[in-house]
Formats: sequence, structure tokens, C-alpha cells
Amino acid sequence: MTAPATLEHYPQAMREEIARVRRVVSDLHAELPRYELVVWTAGNVSQRVPNPDVPDGSADLFVIKPSGVSYDELTPESMVVCDLDGALVDGTRGPSSDTAAHAYVYRHLPEVGGVVHTHSTYATAWAARGEEIPCVLTMMADEFGGPVPVGPFAIIGDDSIGRGIVETLRESRSPAVLMRNHGPFTIGRDARAAVKAAVMCEEVARTVHISRQLGEPLPIEQRHIDSLYDRYQNVYGQK
Amino acid sequence: MTAPATLEHYPQAMREEIARVRRVVSDLHAELPRYELVVWTAGNVSQRVPNPDVPDGSADLFVIKPSGVSYDELTPESMVVCDLDGALVDGTRGPSSDTAAHAYVYRHLPEVGGVVHTHSTYATAWAARGEEIPCVLTMMADEFGGPVPVGPFAIIGDDSIGRGIVETLRESRSPAVLMRNHGPFTIGRDARAAVKAAVMCEEVARTVHISRQLGEPLPIEQRHIDSLYDRYQNVYGQK
Amino acid sequence: MTAPATLEHYPQAMREEIARVRRVVSDLHAELPRYELVVWTAGNVSQRVPNPDVPDGSADLFVIKPSGVSYDELTPESMVVCDLDGALVDGTRGPSSDTAAHAYVYRHLPEVGGVVHTHSTYATAWAARGEEIPCVLTMMADEFGGPVPVGPFAIIGDDSIGRGIVETLRESRSPAVLMRNHGPFTIGRDARAAVKAAVMCEEVARTVHISRQLGEPLPIEQRHIDSLYDRYQNVYGQK
Amino acid sequence: MTAPATLEHYPQAMREEIARVRRVVSDLHAELPRYELVVWTAGNVSQRVPNPDVPDGSADLFVIKPSGVSYDELTPESMVVCDLDGALVDGTRGPSSDTAAHAYVYRHLPEVGGVVHTHSTYATAWAARGEEIPCVLTMMADEFGGPVPVGPFAIIGDDSIGRGIVETLRESRSPAVLMRNHGPFTIGRDARAAVKAAVMCEEVARTVHISRQLGEPLPIEQRHIDSLYDRYQNVYGQK
Repeated sequence: MTAPATLEHYPQAMREEIARVRRVVSDLHAELPRYELVVWTAGNVSQRVPNPDVPDGSADLFVIKPSGVSYDELTPESMVVCDLDGALVDGTRGPSSDTAAHAYVYRHLPEVGGVVHTHSTYATAWAARGEEIPCVLTMMADEFGGPVPVGPFAIIGDDSIGRGIVETLRESRSPAVLMRNHGPFTIGRDARAAVKAAVMCEEVARTVHISRQLGEPLPIEQRHIDSLYDRYQNVYGQK
Repeated sequence: MTAPATLEHYPQAMREEIARVRRVVSDLHAELPRYELVVWTAGNVSQRVPNPDVPDGSADLFVIKPSGVSYDELTPESMVVCDLDGALVDGTRGPSSDTAAHAYVYRHLPEVGGVVHTHSTYATAWAARGEEIPCVLTMMADEFGGPVPVGPFAIIGDDSIGRGIVETLRESRSPAVLMRNHGPFTIGRDARAAVKAAVMCEEVARTVHISRQLGEPLPIEQRHIDSLYDRYQNVYGQK
Repeated sequence: MTAPATLEHYPQAMREEIARVRRVVSDLHAELPRYELVVWTAGNVSQRVPNPDVPDGSADLFVIKPSGVSYDELTPESMVVCDLDGALVDGTRGPSSDTAAHAYVYRHLPEVGGVVHTHSTYATAWAARGEEIPCVLTMMADEFGGPVPVGPFAIIGDDSIGRGIVETLRESRSPAVLMRNHGPFTIGRDARAAVKAAVMCEEVARTVHISRQLGEPLPIEQRHIDSLYDRYQNVYGQK
Repeated sequence: MTAPATLEHYPQAMREEIARVRRVVSDLHAELPRYELVVWTAGNVSQRVPNPDVPDGSADLFVIKPSGVSYDELTPESMVVCDLDGALVDGTRGPSSDTAAHAYVYRHLPEVGGVVHTHSTYATAWAARGEEIPCVLTMMADEFGGPVPVGPFAIIGDDSIGRGIVETLRESRSPAVLMRNHGPFTIGRDARAAVKAAVMCEEVARTVHISRQLGEPLPIEQRHIDSLYDRYQNVYGQK
């Protein structure tokens, strides 16, 4: 995959879509502090922009937060655009230090249109113990279809974070993975769905944590988990 | 009970009351995130609209939240109206996925004018262990008249959630029930009272949880609970 | 003590002071939800209005919150004025259900100019176990001069709550008492000081609770507590 | 070091810089309640103003919060200016009661340009047990390069708080120290960096606390901590 290095080499329709997605991704970053998933500059949201001329997805781009900029200063213009190798294609700032992990996910999971990473407190607390969150709430069965799994310990610098995310999520119905000693990454059909998964991941991490502080939560039978998950994914919300 | 399927078959006075209740119910939804009882689209409030022509209540309606719509987008117009079978009578969107449970409560508890469902964190944590909240606070004696009871495990799809709520609340003075592995449902003479019960349920769930983290709270004698409950229900607030 | 029943029998200067104090007390109520010390209508603040014609204090009045009114609806005009027997002297609404306890404190502690009652979460959690908060933080030594003590179990209806508060605080340097199974009452030279004590009481209740969750906090030697308390009460803040 | 006692004896460029830093420090105080690091009047931020005529730093000044003033009332004008002995050089109010500790840090650590002190809940809870926060999160390795260390018990009145801070931080990569039974002090190249360290210190104190409530967090190998710290200090953020 040798993607062109500047935006002018991409189709006009894609450039227009990027302008729209810059606003979507910038606005969604405001949800992270609103739901208390991040402090200071931590956390990032990205969304894929498909390339209509290259159906295999290898020439897609994605819009992501710039590195080390505080949430109050984020604007659509300050967002950056990268190709699926994580190389900067458009933007006046450096991309988030987690860009390589986002890029790996988009390269290997073509159905994923949005990725979110946070250090949200309760999810990160489970991640620090390397312990999956058991599925003991009906809302967890609805949204995650089972436990929230743990990914391997991996540090920044090569593909090991991205690979850990992808390998863990491929074996799970969960759109969230707790990377060990690090924090959650979530995926979705678009950035908004990935933000919702990040919000719900922290919510179930907190509720199950608190429940376990005073005893053991009661398990939900697998057939009920399956039934709840199936119904929620197919029926819930407005058509 | 074969209620008419569109609003025009209901009395004029009822249609006017529905316009008012749409605003009440829409506004009360804003209390749920304000008191941190819900995230994203979870949680719902409803209020009964009595049918003055059918005194047995079987032709009453209720106003409830549409399904899967975020709290920022709720308006009086987006609320939906259902009959006591849970069938949609008026509205451009689908009703909340918890509509059948609300309808069951209104069918079987004629004195109930409002119902609220949330996944508020501490109440849900007790629910996940299937453990009632003991009455160890004077404010709990005031508001709940005893422990907050636990209802059975039940999943969406038939009347089992509604039946679990009604059977549990009939044996209790509490306006709140913790449905196992699921979360609290609360009732009141109107939607505002049910919202207050939801707020207080989370408050006592949190306070008693925290108290028990470092030891065992001291019990309150039953005669004191009775005396506090009686006084609060009959004397408190403005006449 | 047979205080006159209407405001016109009190000195003009006192009536003017009451107008001022109505605003002070109304505004201070907004601090309680701001610092998350109350939900819904719980909690109340009062301030004494001394009677310049009766130096022994027996003909003083105090301004307090009306009963069962939500925080959003409080105004200076809705505050009520009571005499030190707790009888209503001025106001269109009923006084807070905790008025008798406030009145008892003003009757028996003439140096107290303000009283606050809340059900703040962590302080109430200690109260439910009937356990005093040990003085293990320098800020606690500063503000409380030792542990926050526990008062007896007492229910509304006679002087037992007020008596419990007064007897407990007389044996302590603390401006806060945790009434068993109930919640904190705090005092100060005026309502603002009592609100500050309520805020600090919850703060130390929370911090010491959290510290003890993972082990035993280290004690502070009594001579250091004394030294910190003495300095803070005499030096801190602007002259 | 016998610094002149009034601002007119300092260079013009320094007086202009002080006007700018008054606003910076005043604005940064708003971050402390925003991140829930302080209640009421607790907590303080300061920033050094170097003296260009005296390269050894001994004639520097710093801008700090006045004592006992609430966060709503802070303005650039209400900030006070002290010399490195902690003596008031400019301002209409008394300096923060923690001024001597800030001054000691600036005297002994010439590379430090900003100091922050809070009683943030979770950091103070670790401090009350006298227990360092172990480095079990990648974000901790990034920001702190290891555990957050504990300083000695010390009370206000002489140099013992300042000396405890300096001696502890000299043996650590951490910009934060937990003073025993007291709370965290943080340092940075300027006040903003010290505020960030205060925010991150509370964040890791909370996350590691919550993780340990249900078991033991997994350690991170020292070589990974070193690698993360090195990369973050040298690569992260915009150049």
C-alpha cells in the first residue's frame, strides 16, 4: 500500500467528505470530557473516510485529533488527516500519538468506520489488573453481547497496540477492548458509534466494579445474553 | 380491553391534557442526566393520562420517551402516546423499548400516575447482586418506609418485567424496585413523583453502599421506621 | 420565653436585617447542590437575626428555608422567619421540617449565628455506622481541631435532635456533628461559616473514607493537631 | 539574599512580566475547581518571574494566590507578589498560607517555574496512608516516569514543608509529591505545567486506587516505564 502523500491526489468527493468529517470528529471530542472519559489532552476520536475509487479500502483516509492539544482548542480545522499507514496527508499539526493504532484498526477491520481511545477511570482500573468485565448487567448484554475483553500489554512505537486491539476484538462481540495497563479502545460503524461504545464501556466498568465491591454479582445465563444482544442489535432505536 | 388506535377517538379533554403532559414528560427527562441517573439514551419517564369517560382506567393513555433518541434532542413533540397495551396511539417515532413494562404497571396499579426507569449506577450495582438496600438512613425511612426491594430477573419481550415490578411493589411501601441484573423502576402519583423516587433511590443506594464499604451500618428499629414514614408521607412539604 | 408572634412587634433595625439575611440565606442554599451536598429538596441553611433590645438572645429570630421547596425555586421572599421556639413569625410557607433542631441550637448556643443540615453522602455514610471521622488530615486539624463526632439517634417530633447536636458539639472543637443514621449538622458564627463547615465536613468524610478503603491512615500526633488548629483559627485568611 | 521590599526596585521588564503572570496565575486557579482538585478556598498556584539582572535566581519573584479568598473572587489584581524568602513585595492582601513552601521550592530548584498545591481527594487519601502510588499505568509512566513518591510529615511554620518537597522530588522523576497526611504538591517549568501535573496526579491516584480495590494491578517492567517516559518527554505534543 503506497498511498499518495497529499490530499490533492484523492478524489474530489473524498475531499468534500473530509471537510464534513473534520466537523463531526471535532464535535465528538467534546463528548469525551462531557462524559468524564478524559482529562487534559488524553483521548482521541477518529473516523474513516472511504475512497470510492479503491474498493478494497487500502486508499482510505481517516480524520483524527492532533497531538497534545487541549479540548477547548479543538476545531474542525485543527483536525488532521492520515492515510492507513498513519502518515500525515493533511493538517498543520502532528497527528495524535495513538495514530498508528487507529490506522492498524482501519487497515485490518474494513467494517470499522470509527475508533475511540480514552483512559476512562473505571475501564482503565480493570485494564490495570488485566481483568475482563463480566457480563452481569442486561445493558451489557445489549451493548457488548458478553464480557468486555482484555488485550495484551503493548507499548507505543510499532504495530503492537493495533495488533492487540484487532486480535482481541476479532474473538469477541464487544466493540470495546481493555488494553492491559493502558485503557480502553472502542470501535463502531462510525465515530459516533465508537464514542457511544466508549461511554457505555465506562458505564458498565463502573457499575460492575461498584457491584463487586460488596459481593459477587449474579451471572446472567448465556442464552439470555444471546437473546438480549440479538434483540438490541436488530430492534432497538429508530429505524 | 380493545382501545382505539388513533388519538381522534379519545375525548377532546384528554387530547388537551396530552399536549400538556408531553411537555411535562419531555422536561422531566432533563432531570435524569442532571442527577446523573442515565448516560446516552438509557432511561425513560412516562405519565398516565386518565380517560374521563372510562372510570375503570382501561382506556387511559400514557406519554413516554421515543426509543433510542438522545436527551439533547427530546422535545414535547417527539414524545409518543401509547395505550395501556403499549400500542402506539400518537407519535412519529417508535416508543421506548421499555413501553410494555410501563403499560403493565399502569394496567395493574391504577393509583400510579408516573413511571421511571433508569440504570443509575449504585441502584444497578445492588440489582446486579440481587440484594435489597437495607433501611439504615432516616431519609430512607421517610421516603421508602423500609428497604428497597429486589424484583426477579426478567427479560424484554413479554410481560415478565412489568409483572415482576408490580408483584414486588405490591408487597412493599417502597416506590422503587431493583430489577435483578437490570436496574431500578420507580412509581409515583405522577411522573414528577416517580422521578423524585428515582433520584432518592440512587441517593440511598449510593450512601448505604459507601457506608457498608467500611463496616456494617447500624439498623433503625422498625417502630422508628414506621414513625418516620408516617410523618413524612402526611406532614412534609407545603400543603 | 414568650416571643411575639408577628414581625411588627420586633424592632425596625431587626426587620431591616431580616430583609438582608433572607437574601444571604437564599443565596447560600445554592452552595449546597453546587458542592453536591444535597439532592432534590433535602438540606437547609439558617441564620440568626439578633434582637438588639434583648441582650440575652431569647427574643432573637432566624431565617430558614421553607419546607419541601426545590432549590431552583428558592428566593429571598420564599424564606421564612421563626422565633427561637421554632414558631413561624413571618413567611407565606411552612418552615423546614428541621426547624425545631435549628431553633434548639440557637436557644442553647448563643455564639452560634448559622446552622446547616445536609444528607451529604460520605458524612451520612459515617453517620449510618455511628462512627466518628478520625483526624488524619492536616486540613481536618485546621478546620475541626480533631475528629468529627457522632451524635445520638434521634427522630423528629421533639427536642431530641437539637439536644443531641448541642450536647455533642459542646464536648468538641468540631463545628460539625454526624447525627446517627441521619446526617451532618454544622454550625458557625454565621450561615456562611456553617456552609463552609458542611462543605469541609463532606470533603474530609470522603477523603478519610477513601484513604481507609486500602489500609489505615497514619494518625497525627495530638500536639500537631493542636498547633495546626490554633494557627488556622487565629492566622488564616484575610484580616 | 536580601531582596528589596517593594516592586519599584525591580527592573521594568520584570514589572511588565508580573502584570502578564498575574493574569496567567489567576486564570489557572479556575482549573483547580474545574478538575475538582479543590473545594472552597483550598489550593494555590504560583509562577516564578525571573530577574534578568541577577542570573543566579536569588532575586526572582513569584506570583501567588492571596490567602483565604474564594475562587469566584480571584482576579489578576488580587494576586500577590512575593520574593524568594516569601516576603510580600506587591499586593493588597496577605499571601497564601503555603507561600513559604512555594518560596523554598523556587529557592532550591532553579529549573522550576511553577508550583501547585491542592488537597485533591484521591492523592490526599494516599498521602494520609503515607503510601506512594505504584506505576501501573502507561499514562503514569509517560507523565511521572515511575511511582508518585511520599514526602515527610511536616507542619506549617518553618521550612519543613518546602524542604520535604525538595528532598523528595530530587530523588524522583515525578513532578508530584504526596506530603504525608497533607496532600500533593506539583512542579513544572511554568504554572501551567504544574497544574497539568496536579490534574494527572489526581487522575492516576484515583485510577490506581480503584484498580486496587478489587485486586492487585499488574506491574509494568522498569524497561517499559523508562521507554514510555523517555518517549513522552521528548516526542509528545506539538513542537
